[in-house]
Amino acid sequence: MNNLKSEEVTVRSIGYIETPFDEKFAVPRQSSLISHGHFEIHFHPPYDAEEAFKGIDDFSHLWISFLFDRINEDDSFRPTVRPPRLGGNEYKGVFATRSPFRPNRLGLSVVKLLSVNRNHGKVSLIVAGADMVNGTPIIDVKPYIEFVDSIPSAVSGFAREAPVMHQVSFSEEALKQIAETGIPDFRELIEEVLAQDPRPAYKSRHSDERLYGVGLCGYDVKWQASESGFTVRYLEKA
Amino acid sequence: MNNLKSEEVTVRSIGYIETPFDEKFAVPRQSSLISHGHFEIHFHPPYDAEEAFKGIDDFSHLWISFLFDRINEDDSFRPTVRPPRLGGNEYKGVFATRSPFRPNRLGLSVVKLLSVNRNHGKVSLIVAGADMVNGTPIIDVKPYIEFVDSIPSAVSGFAREAPVMHQVSFSEEALKQIAETGIPDFRELIEEVLAQDPRPAYKSRHSDERLYGVGLCGYDVKWQASESGFTVRYLEKA
Repeated sequence: MNNLKSEEVTVRSIGYIETPFDEKFAVPRQSSLISHGHFEIHFHPPYDAEEAFKGIDDFSHLWISFLFDRINEDDSFRPTVRPPRLGGNEYKGVFATRSPFRPNRLGLSVVKLLSVNRNHGKVSLIVAGADMVNGTPIIDVKPYIEFVDSIPSAVSGFAREAPVMHQVSFSEEALKQIAETGIPDFRELIEEVLAQDPRPAYKSRHSDERLYGVGLCGYDVKWQASESGFTVRYLEKA
Repeated sequence: MNNLKSEEVTVRSIGYIETPFDEKFAVPRQSSLISHGHFEIHFHPPYDAEEAFKGIDDFSHLWISFLFDRINEDDSFRPTVRPPRLGGNEYKGVFATRSPFRPNRLGLSVVKLLSVNRNHGKVSLIVAGADMVNGTPIIDVKPYIEFVDSIPSAVSGFAREAPVMHQVSFSEEALKQIAETGIPDFRELIEEVLAQDPRPAYKSRHSDERLYGVGLCGYDVKWQASESGFTVRYLEKA
């Protein structure tokens, strides 16, 4: 039914996204759970041409197709993964999850379109809610079409409900350091990222004494978990 | 920010979809507007392994990433397209549309999961509502996650509302021929396809005398447009 030609195709990135997440560990596990932080999609020429975005301002949300480029390309296909949602100790089929460890390493996220930057005929997009590492290659941008894409009645298996959010507090030192960075809404961003518990899933049910670090906006944010939630201790310039 | 390695990647099809649409002309312009007809996603080994689908039955809807393989790969990038929605005579930026004429020829559709076929450890998926030509290469399957993907408040520009549906009627001869094919729900499928007016957009405001043909389920379905709607005249074996 398929000719051989269509079985393989070369995909080129059309741009990349700038996010506050310097490493995989910092990235929220779904899009739309993060509302703070600066996210900008930059396009390579010729995809940055202003006319290629004519009409995009009329849409509130966009689908971003991207490549999980931090996943080893040479990894052979593994049919099952252990979703963090299930505590990391239950296997699901890769096609029943959005795990990055999948054929073709294709990622898909919905983002909110905040504004369209037009500068001398070149465009970049400011968006909210992306779950991608800083520099992730973008391969397509499409409008979200409500009457097709929004299915409030959809049944979503083990991902039925939004994840539980954890309490996040800050030491005096951390608050002082955060203020000194001058990064807008940096405290709120840290709160949103930690509230989702970025620890490996098998740890997430326990409190431990360990000092964790998470790379955000060029800083290594040091924090600890306790019974009552997470506490940010201090920041280090990465 | 990006290394060169990540700018290009080879994508392999993991399978293909069997649909009633023998040609581009027959394909509905959005997914989810078609509820009849047989749609089955077949997977190439090793992606057909039963364990790769463990848990998928718990989801009602899936995202299908596919390749627009009927679009000429050598077409250079064109920043604007003329959406059929706008009568085909207004230009929009390609990133503000879901036109198949786009970088990387990546398609994305949400489908309803009807059932999971398991046969000697191999899986195929029966789905409803796909807007793909028969044999379209599939490159990924992901679950639809309601709390992330469904955004009823999303604003959708020129695609704000579902398209207007047209009235479809059948000649006696067509009804007899359709019955003789033995294809389940074939009449309903033809109705759904024609109701969306598959004619080129610039024709869709006019009635004309022309006899159109549309390739469905191995038949060339012949029909005409009039003031009051569309009439199916007869079928020819394709």
